[in-house]
Amino acid sequence: MSRWKPDARGRLEKAALELYNAKGFDATTVAEIAARAGLTERTFFRHFTDKREVLFPNNNPLADLLTKATTNAPTDLPPLEVITHALTQAAPLFEERADLVRQRQAVITANPSLQERELAKLAALATTLTHALHKRGLNTATAALAADIGIATFKAAFEHWTNDPDRHPLAHHIRQTLNTARHITTNHPYADDTTTTPPPPECEG
Amino acid sequence: MSRWKPDARGRLEKAALELYNAKGFDATTVAEIAARAGLTERTFFRHFTDKREVLFPNNNPLADLLTKATTNAPTDLPPLEVITHALTQAAPLFEERADLVRQRQAVITANPSLQERELAKLAALATTLTHALHKRGLNTATAALAADIGIATFKAAFEHWTNDPDRHPLAHHIRQTLNTARHITTNHPYADDTTTTPPPPECEG
Repeated sequence: MSRWKPDARGRLEKAALELYNAKGFDATTVAEIAARAGLTERTFFRHFTDKREVLFPNNNPLADLLTKATTNAPTDLPPLEVITHALTQAAPLFEERADLVRQRQAVITANPSLQERELAKLAALATTLTHALHKRGLNTATAALAADIGIATFKAAFEHWTNDPDRHPLAHHIRQTLNTARHITTNHPYADDTTTTPPPPECEG
Repeated sequence: MSRWKPDARGRLEKAALELYNAKGFDATTVAEIAARAGLTERTFFRHFTDKREVLFPNNNPLADLLTKATTNAPTDLPPLEVITHALTQAAPLFEERADLVRQRQAVITANPSLQERELAKLAALATTLTHALHKRGLNTATAALAADIGIATFKAAFEHWTNDPDRHPLAHHIRQTLNTARHITTNHPYADDTTTTPPPPECEG
């Protein structure tokens, strides 16, 4: 088959994810991926540096999209709402390729070394969000905490989404998880007394 | 010098951290650490598998302590308060060796590969907390989110503590950071209307 077929990259990714899930990430070779995609190894290496880059692409548009959405969020939103707004804007990146995203997640869940890489990628995303929030006027420490809580919220929403038998959109799960996060951080969630104003946090000092 | 001197482990740790900070983690050899501690390489390897284990000890009591404190926390505390309670109980582990802890943090901040390891260790702690919260009756998804938010809160508190010129105790920073986390997740932190009760989150269904 010609290596110039359209969407070689997409076919390689699909073949790779199927093989990683079927026989394991470590046991899969680039030759097998290329053969399954009907392409050559040379074509594989034109698109990916190695097997791992299929799972962690260098040209991931997520960071840029989150930065822009954070920067452009309405000015009066509190920090976690800003992040939720940005993550919701990014949701179509996942929705559009839901099957591939779910397959990718299964591969990562099965491999501790890939989980470490995923954690590092999520930490890098948190740093991106921290910078974007800081540019909106939040001090760095509070921005970093908000970004970490935002990424934790996204992780949980993503988990719900990948396992949702009713296939609600990711944005729905982000919104629900934000409510849960709010509930978790509330001092006395079942108390009737909601009339006390919380003290100003040190971050605003 | 004899390799049987008391607290060989502590002397090796101190020497290692000084060298890691002075000449870099990668550039430091075990021979240099042992020499600086006045001990032999053989003694080093009786206490540590390698250079990295000085920073990430296998026998770290933190996970056990957090599990016990989570299990024994008052039953009526909301999830993040439980975690804060547990982290506050663990604070003396850091307070008692504040100088070493600060030196360790500086080494990790300077080395991306050590940061990845630290992230993996924090993720493992989050998993420990998730299990402990689940045993208290919280569903796994909510427990995982609470644990992630708890670890994010601890990371931020720890950062404040290591950089605090006034040397407030870690417990103080944990409490302050919890307030900040609460503030971040609040829908409209500056609104006067605090009379609406938030909807029950999906986690409680």
